[in-house]
Order: sequence, then C-alpha cells, then structure tokens
Amino acid sequence: MKTLSILGSTGSIGTQTLDVVRENPDQLRVYALAAGSNVDKIEQQVREFKPQRVALMNEEAAEELKSRLSDLPIPVEQGMKGMISAVTADEPDTIVTAISGRIGLEPTLTALNAGKNIALANKETLVAGGDLVMETARKLGCSIIPVDSEHSAIFQCLEEPKGTLDKLLITASGGPFLGWPHEKLKGVTPEMALKHPNWSMGAKITIDSATMMNKGLEVIEAHHLFGLNYDKIEVLIHPQSVVHSMVQYQDGSVLAQLGRPDMRLPIQYALSYPTRWPSSFERLDLRGKTLTFQEPNLQETPALALAYEVGRRGGTLPAVMNAANEVSVYAFLEGKIGYLQIVEIVEAVCQEHEVLDITDLESILEADEWARKRAKERIINS
Amino acid sequence: MKTLSILGSTGSIGTQTLDVVRENPDQLRVYALAAGSNVDKIEQQVREFKPQRVALMNEEAAEELKSRLSDLPIPVEQGMKGMISAVTADEPDTIVTAISGRIGLEPTLTALNAGKNIALANKETLVAGGDLVMETARKLGCSIIPVDSEHSAIFQCLEEPKGTLDKLLITASGGPFLGWPHEKLKGVTPEMALKHPNWSMGAKITIDSATMMNKGLEVIEAHHLFGLNYDKIEVLIHPQSVVHSMVQYQDGSVLAQLGRPDMRLPIQYALSYPTRWPSSFERLDLRGKTLTFQEPNLQETPALALAYEVGRRGGTLPAVMNAANEVSVYAFLEGKIGYLQIVEIVEAVCQEHEVLDITDLESILEADEWARKRAKERIINS
Repeated sequence: MKTLSILGSTGSIGTQTLDVVRENPDQLRVYALAAGSNVDKIEQQVREFKPQRVALMNEEAAEELKSRLSDLPIPVEQGMKGMISAVTADEPDTIVTAISGRIGLEPTLTALNAGKNIALANKETLVAGGDLVMETARKLGCSIIPVDSEHSAIFQCLEEPKGTLDKLLITASGGPFLGWPHEKLKGVTPEMALKHPNWSMGAKITIDSATMMNKGLEVIEAHHLFGLNYDKIEVLIHPQSVVHSMVQYQDGSVLAQLGRPDMRLPIQYALSYPTRWPSSFERLDLRGKTLTFQEPNLQETPALALAYEVGRRGGTLPAVMNAANEVSVYAFLEGKIGYLQIVEIVEAVCQEHEVLDITDLESILEADEWARKRAKERIINS
Repeated sequence: MKTLSILGSTGSIGTQTLDVVRENPDQLRVYALAAGSNVDKIEQQVREFKPQRVALMNEEAAEELKSRLSDLPIPVEQGMKGMISAVTADEPDTIVTAISGRIGLEPTLTALNAGKNIALANKETLVAGGDLVMETARKLGCSIIPVDSEHSAIFQCLEEPKGTLDKLLITASGGPFLGWPHEKLKGVTPEMALKHPNWSMGAKITIDSATMMNKGLEVIEAHHLFGLNYDKIEVLIHPQSVVHSMVQYQDGSVLAQLGRPDMRLPIQYALSYPTRWPSSFERLDLRGKTLTFQEPNLQETPALALAYEVGRRGGTLPAVMNAANEVSVYAFLEGKIGYLQIVEIVEAVCQEHEVLDITDLESILEADEWARKRAKERIINS
C-alpha cells in the first residue's frame, strides 16, 4: 500500500493519477491533495477520495473551499505553506508532483529532504535544479520515478523486474510472397523462394520464411522458451524486420527490441549474456524509416495456422510436423514438388498421425522417422 | 572467457558466430567446429580459429578434410559421433547449435546432459522435443539462450542486467505545426496551438509541445534522470506517439517502450514500481498501424536547439530558460505576444544572462526571478 500526496490534483496528470488510484484501491490511498485555484474540482475530489489534508495555492479559492468543506473534518491550507505540509507530513511515502512550472521545485526538494519518493511529472523541477534535486535524492536514498511518457519508456527499458506477461508479439516479415494470390503462388520456383527481402539466411529457413512455416516453428519455440500458452502468443506481420519482437505486460505496456536485420547481434547477445559487449556492427538508423504492422491472414498462411493447431495438440505431433516439413522443403528445393505442395504434404502427414505422449528421446525419434517416411511416400506419389 | 563448440559452423549462423568470435577475441574461444559436408569452408575456419576438435557429418567429406589437415595435430571426427564428442568434452561451456533441422535434437540433449549451456539457433529442437529439452535444462541448471532474432528480442525485453547504454532516443510527436513554414507559424493563435494531435494535456505543456520547447525540457530532464551527457541524447520525430522512447545499448541493440497515448500507464508504472499491476486500460493494437521516424530540423525548432545549448552550458542557465519560457507561454495564451515571439523572448533572455554556478535553492530562485522580470519587460516592450 502506498500513501500519496498529489500536488496539482486538478490538472491533467493529477486527475489521471486519481483514475489510477480509483483502479487500484488496495494499492494506493490519498493522504493529501493540493492544487492551484479550481475549487469545484478539488471539492469533488476531496469528497470522493477523503484525504486528510487539502491545500490550494490561491488565497481566495482556499477560503471558498474551507467554507464549502465545513461539514468535513479536513483542514484546508493555503499557499506554498499548504504544499509543504502535504509533502512533509509523516503519512505519505510518495509525492506525485503534477503541478506545472518551476513552482514545483521547492516542494519537491522539501519532500526529498523529508525522505519521500517522487513520482515526477514536473519536468521544470529537473530543468531548473536537476543537479541539486538528483544529488539530494541520492544522498537521502529517495527514488525519483519519471511520469513523463518518454522518460517512463526509458526507465521501463532499463529497469527490472518487469512484472507479469500478458502476451508475446512475434513479428514476421511475411517473406517474399506476402499477399500473393493462390494462383500466383503455384508458379513459385526455388530461386524465387530463396530471395528473402530482409534477412540473409540458409536455404531451409529461407523457404520456411516464404511458407511462414518458420513463424509457426517460432511460435512453438516461444511457447517452450517463455512458458506461455498459445493464446498468449501472437504473430504480427512487419515487413521491414526492424522490430524483432515485443512483449506486453499486464498493465498494457509493450517493450520491443529493435535492430538492423543482422544476426550477429542476437548471436553476440546469446554469448555475452548476462552482460553486453561493445560492438562495431552497423547501428540501426530510424531516421526516414517507416514501420508497418498487420495481422497475418491465416487463410493465406496455412502453415502458420497448422503450427498453432499442432502446438496446442502437443505430444508427438510437433515432431511429426517438423519432420514432414524438412523432407518437403528439400523435395521442393530439388524440384520434386511444387511450392504449394510443401505445406499440403505436411498437413496431410499431420492429419494421418496418431498422436502419442512423449516419454523420452526415442519416442520423438520414432515419430520423426515415421513422418519422414510418410512424407517421402507422398512426394513420390505426387 | 567462454569456450564454444559450434555445431553447423559453415552455415549462415555458424559463419556469423565466427564473426562474433573474431570481434571478441578476449571473451570467446572456439573448442570445436562441426558441420555437414563443406570441406573448403571448414578447412579455412580450422586454420583461422585453431579449434581442438573438428567433425563433419558426411563420411567422404570427413576423409577429405582429414587428409587436408594432415599438417595440423587436430583430430577430425565423422558423423553424429563427432558432434557428440564436440559437445561432451570437458572444455566447452557453451554449445552454439546452428545446424538446421531435427538433427540438432540429439546433440542438444546430450550437451544439456553434460551440463553445457546452449546458444540455441536450432528451433526444430524445441519444436520436436520442447518439453523434454526444457525439462532437462531446468533439471541440470543449464541455460538455453535463444539466437533466433525474435526470441532474442523477447529475451532481451525480459532479462536484466542490460549493460552499458550507448544513447537515449527520445521520441517527439512534432506537435500540431510539424513542417509548417515560418510565414505560416506567424499566424498561429492560442486556439490552434492548444490542439495536440495525440495527447490530451494541460495548456502550458501543449504550447511547449507546439514550440518543441517541451522536448528541449525533456532532453535536460533525461540528462539528469539517466546521467548521460547531451551528445548521447537524441530526439526523433515520431508523429504517431506509439513508441514513447528508446534506449540503445553498446552492442547496438535498441529497446523501446510502446503504448497508447494514455498517461495513466506511465503514472501507474511510477506508482506500482518496482512491480506492475494489471490494468483495464485500452490495449495498444498495432494491426494496421504505420510508424514513421525522422530527424528533427533544428532550424525549424529553435527551442530544441536552444535547450541543448542551455543544457550543455548548465549552471543557472536552464533555470533561466525555463522561467522565461513559463512567462512567455502564459503571455502568448493571454494574447500579449505572437506565437513566434515565445521562443524569441526566451532566447533573448538566455543570451543576456550571466551564468552562475548553482550552489543552493536560493541561487536557482534568484536566477528564476531575474529571468521572469526580464521576460516580462520584453513582453511589455514588444
């Protein structure tokens, strides 16, 4: 439970702070409200949130509020003195500084000197007295948590722990045939499929990218790596391959990792983890970039739809899908089957498989062998 | 120092892994290289990286490699047996599984059972045997770090510590007058400036957003909050206000925080920190969204250019800029000066200020008072 004094409660940030309090009654309570001169609004806030103190900067407004609140045992203070009482009292642990302008500097410094943490929405305080304010916070061990959306974004990218996940958003370039009609896909040759628009990769994964089976395999991979069920793993078409994937937390905040389509970066991170090493890799330059996002059309990407189904079913079925896909992709590369047949054969082999539980490595290898055999028979008969 | 066995060293991920080794000779060394059948490439890799073991799956290719490497004291093994030796030897602590296909499953499981960490570029392993592989890793306390760019992105969003910062990228909507020519800006009225395209905010900050002084104040705020010098703080125009800001680490990786333009989210985070609470706020939906980024034109945004200069100079100057800006914005809102005069007056007051060091709160308040007085005089004389 945190106890708040809100400076600037009637302004835009102040009223939204009270929305957050309203949403989290077990986590937050209001000790004091302070504002400038808006008597109507603060009276309403006082009657709803029942703080133990209230203050208005404007003298006349404070007098008017005092007479309006005469039915309540809440002291109404006035001017900077009222702000200072609101932040120095023992009860609040966190001060929301949502007043606009340099006027916020003095109460912020006073609050820090009284050992309070600051939820800082008053940027002018840091502009005018940044060094002094930060030094005071450091010396007294108080946190200053930014509220400004930009600084909150940076803070969220830097801080841990992150909290509970809502879902994963896996991005997909969509491959070279994004949006191509069925008729046109029939004529795709290995040479056409081996040209990926963004990434330079091996032959197998390049074909898998074209069919979107690669994204299907990645959905199953993510399920295992991050322990989320399939309903919480979404695929988002993002043809520019700049945002490599995202996570959404339970408060709605989304964190994303971005970079050039250069595999050396994730490779180095996997090897430098848990730290990062400097690198001379070319930097991402977002200037002039346009990033787009769209929902995948599952009708046009049967491999992705199949992978979700197969992943949900589990057991030996994912191993079967993977084995049939490996065989079919190489058969396509060797000119034995057409492009659309890759996924058709995988689907057919999955459909005839009797799914078993996986008990050990042997059970996986047996399912894999069976699927390769069945895929090869279908290729010969095709 | 990490010691690697690389399975699939001649493929796309394998060769890029060796690029990373080449970049980090003090951090990484190669114990074993294993591949399929590419004799020319692996011979070259062996001569450069001098591993203690080498293996090829293909029998004939292994024979050929053996005779080519007869001048070196390096054993050449063949088939799955060679892979297994490469991952079970005592020396390597980390196995890079960069072979394609289900063939990677057995050596990965064997490596985990030998207590090795895995840098996983072989997604088929998890597709075919995800539960078994993850359970084995958990039981033996081995890490599986994803190399796939999407999964690396998610992993990076989830993991800490993050490493050293290269720079901050603060996004800016650009406000309602982005790209307007000087002549047209002359006629801007308070009503026009109070309409922000994305955010609903108070009057002062809305005008500051229009002049871009808001972004200038945020640059100075970020300097204090995150302790980076001004050369490492960049502003990026992003009219859609979906990416709230970004950080770039020293390896080149960029993390971003995204969300709807709803201030309740950063407010709640500032209050829930260090955890996150569930929220019922409307979720960001990226489907159908287009995000653009461009460099700010400092000629067109004199307030931003001024703020960088003022921030770098430091001392009492930021307090002076802020005070002059507060006075000028309210004068504009009251119809006393034109839109373009806001920043002109702030610039003029900054220029005539004799900068002092800040020693205490008094020195800030004195500079602030002086600036307000000078700004008001200029407004009366304008």
